[in-house]
Amino acid sequence: MHVVVNAAMSADGKLSSRRREQVAISGDRDFDRVDDLRAASDAVVVGVGTVLADDPSLTVKSTDRQQARRERGEPANPARVVVDSSGRTPLEAAVLDDRAATHCCLSERASPERRTELADRAAVHVAGADRVDLPAAFDQLADAGLERLMVEGGGELIFSLFEATLVDELRVFVGPTVIGGRDAPTLADGEGYIADCPTLTLGSVTELDGGVLLEWLVD
Amino acid sequence: MHVVVNAAMSADGKLSSRRREQVAISGDRDFDRVDDLRAASDAVVVGVGTVLADDPSLTVKSTDRQQARRERGEPANPARVVVDSSGRTPLEAAVLDDRAATHCCLSERASPERRTELADRAAVHVAGADRVDLPAAFDQLADAGLERLMVEGGGELIFSLFEATLVDELRVFVGPTVIGGRDAPTLADGEGYIADCPTLTLGSVTELDGGVLLEWLVD
Repeated sequence: MHVVVNAAMSADGKLSSRRREQVAISGDRDFDRVDDLRAASDAVVVGVGTVLADDPSLTVKSTDRQQARRERGEPANPARVVVDSSGRTPLEAAVLDDRAATHCCLSERASPERRTELADRAAVHVAGADRVDLPAAFDQLADAGLERLMVEGGGELIFSLFEATLVDELRVFVGPTVIGGRDAPTLADGEGYIADCPTLTLGSVTELDGGVLLEWLVD
Repeated sequence: MHVVVNAAMSADGKLSSRRREQVAISGDRDFDRVDDLRAASDAVVVGVGTVLADDPSLTVKSTDRQQARRERGEPANPARVVVDSSGRTPLEAAVLDDRAATHCCLSERASPERRTELADRAAVHVAGADRVDLPAAFDQLADAGLERLMVEGGGELIFSLFEATLVDELRVFVGPTVIGGRDAPTLADGEGYIADCPTLTLGSVTELDGGVLLEWLVD
């Protein structure tokens, strides 16, 4: 399995405002790059917080890229994966529509009723007691044939993935704006490290959309 | 007056751990760059939180640069400025030593006793009722001959300066590590914007110390 975390953050490291409302950080070239990365992935992974805040569909926007996937014998869109410890994904969420397969990774804290409701619309994987056991859940995703994973946030999931040493690459677009806010979501939230922070190796630096794309490899 | 904000942040936008303990983010080349910027400044500005957390001296480390300042008729070190609404700077703080002049910017919330104690060791400027009125305080600094200001943090002060539209340049070293933490200090904390975020223009991108120095101009 190969896991790429991809995000756009402001020059001060924020993913959105403190109200968790999206702020324009990147532009057309970065959106196109993200679409290309989605199209090259087996699955796009988000935390339930992102589903609740933004209701993304996580599908490939370019019909050419969808067509190229079909020609490779793949579905038009990569699968969607929602990491959702207590099963809060709304049944009307866009990630549960029929445009792509969806996997919900739950913990045992999700009620039997919620598991059943979600299992009508998605493949359900249960791993972990109170929180999703990410290594175990990702093993189940690998068993389902999902090898190339792209993670699109949010900051709580991204930190948890670093903590579980599941991240291979971090691609961050740093945009030309300042959002600020001690309570605004950042690229990596969670508890945070107090020592032994993971280190990175800079792979490439590319100017685009008035900002900079930084591609890091996780050591 | 020209105000440059300079900081080193992790790849996820943090200045330090959630315990406000310093984490190695940059290296020798960036330290040298910061020393050069200090030596080219009339004053180095920090918030009292940075004084309490790190007790920095904010002096120029290179004796060659100190000598060059003397030859230009300047003091060996730039002045230190502490923005400290309630007058919490400890009397034994390194910024109050005799290696450089110091200015304490207080609000009227600072007690008369604290004002007197600090006035023994620093020039005291009082502006604002509950919080330092930054435009008024910076006018007083300009009146004292301080025109080239370098701001070294922390995130609360940096956000307040953006809010007061006092920042001309933002220079950020983005280092090859992930610190994480929803409560860790970020480059710009405070309340944060919910709309009309300040926009930046990318001036230069320089790889150093395994990371990237981004130099932004504030629009």
